[in-house]
Amino acid sequence: MTDFKTELAGVAHAVEQALAQHLPRPAGDHAVVTKAMRYAALGGGKRLRPFLLVEAARMLGGDTDGALLAGCALECIHVYSLIHDDLPCMDDDDLRRGKPTVHKAYDEAIAVLAGDGLLTHAFALMADARVHPDPALRLRLVAELAAASGTDGMIGGQVTDITVAEDARDTALITRLQAMKTGALIRFATKAGGLIAAAEPHDLMALDRYASALGLAFQIQDDILDVEGDMETVGKAVGKDANLGKATFVSTLGLDGAKQKARELGQTAGAALAPYGEKAQTLLGTVDFVLERRH
Amino acid sequence: MTDFKTELAGVAHAVEQALAQHLPRPAGDHAVVTKAMRYAALGGGKRLRPFLLVEAARMLGGDTDGALLAGCALECIHVYSLIHDDLPCMDDDDLRRGKPTVHKAYDEAIAVLAGDGLLTHAFALMADARVHPDPALRLRLVAELAAASGTDGMIGGQVTDITVAEDARDTALITRLQAMKTGALIRFATKAGGLIAAAEPHDLMALDRYASALGLAFQIQDDILDVEGDMETVGKAVGKDANLGKATFVSTLGLDGAKQKARELGQTAGAALAPYGEKAQTLLGTVDFVLERRH
Repeated sequence: MTDFKTELAGVAHAVEQALAQHLPRPAGDHAVVTKAMRYAALGGGKRLRPFLLVEAARMLGGDTDGALLAGCALECIHVYSLIHDDLPCMDDDDLRRGKPTVHKAYDEAIAVLAGDGLLTHAFALMADARVHPDPALRLRLVAELAAASGTDGMIGGQVTDITVAEDARDTALITRLQAMKTGALIRFATKAGGLIAAAEPHDLMALDRYASALGLAFQIQDDILDVEGDMETVGKAVGKDANLGKATFVSTLGLDGAKQKARELGQTAGAALAPYGEKAQTLLGTVDFVLERRH
Repeated sequence: MTDFKTELAGVAHAVEQALAQHLPRPAGDHAVVTKAMRYAALGGGKRLRPFLLVEAARMLGGDTDGALLAGCALECIHVYSLIHDDLPCMDDDDLRRGKPTVHKAYDEAIAVLAGDGLLTHAFALMADARVHPDPALRLRLVAELAAASGTDGMIGGQVTDITVAEDARDTALITRLQAMKTGALIRFATKAGGLIAAAEPHDLMALDRYASALGLAFQIQDDILDVEGDMETVGKAVGKDANLGKATFVSTLGLDGAKQKARELGQTAGAALAPYGEKAQTLLGTVDFVLERRH
């Protein structure tokens, strides 16, 4: 676990540096929006999605520099979704990663536009020649990213989350919701890493089984933390979902049931990568990290 | 002009049909967002940007079916920008194209997400093999679209428009603002049409001189109409900019000065395409259409 945390911190540091380099720099009459984009994207976060992308590429012997830049594109999508989800008309959150959300630090209009800017910039980065020398491969990454983050993926999941009544949510619904809202980008992460590493179809299938199980385990652990965590550790309002009477994996499965389900998913994720032996060590460590995390 | 209007209406009809075919269809728990996307994108609009894209490709002998799909991608960007610009935290408009804006017909959260969905889908469409058989060319279109619609283009222009104080606006500033807010997508339209038609560098330069002049003429005419138009004809609140004391080309150049400037730009646009003779007829007709339009 020590090696794993060193690796995770190392990639997070590299993502931070690469984002600082590849995000637009504040200049011109519109500098406030690029400032807001950098405020939201820099200075924190686990960088789990780029980490998975880089480590999937590494496991299969791919170019990790290209994977890192693709990871930055993916992180831009993740950060834009946080900015828009935090807006008053959606979750109305004042804090994110322990600092004021973009619409609090700036204003609502700049938050909408900074999100739009990051979403747009994600595709500019993914099209960059430094991601991979083959333009056809980069085009495939663009198309896959659009699919994973669009209405059949992340956006659709967010829409379901804000529109489906709590009393209409059972385990099946919140499983579908998670698969779209957070699962799609996590699956994209490992697929993109695989594609950059010229993965064979059976490799992509193994990565997808791993990422699907990991993504769901991550969400279940989030729901468990929401009940068990304390304010100081997680850095955001705790018990919020439960207080709002929100259906979660804990409310539909019970706390013990949720923990059992998370463990089973961890085993499924591990089994998917068993054929890769030592090379899968970091991705397998991610499963333990997700299940044991406290924030 | 009769031929021109027939051509414009024909492309608008084709864009409408293609958008209806290529936008996501309402399905699943999140159907409301795809309904909102179709509500905003279908049923109206001049479709000027896709028209310019298709006609630039046609002038140079390119594939107009591919150009039409690229035009749909571009229109998705334009429509998303209208949805977000209409939000209460930005221009707070209740009507668009004579019907309630998305946040009025649905709600603010769905308007933000429908805009995000259209922005994301634009890149999915531009990556589609039916745009052009060469993936490297499609990737270039993706990168150019991201640049034109990002913080150094359309988004930057909108940020300038909502943040720079009215008394700090002179002709130079509102010219820069227009070049980004509306000019960048209009220039992209003709460039994309040119690229699909395998344009030579000198063709791309001629198209860019044309589009830059046309885009600015369009904005100046918009400002003139804002003063001269009447409510019924333009279908939105008229005199709004003037009533708000907003700096426009009419306020900085005077009404006669603005008309003179628009005529000069029309001549510049026409001169840029003079070498193409008869083949440029429709694009030249667009200049007259822009300068003579009443809505």
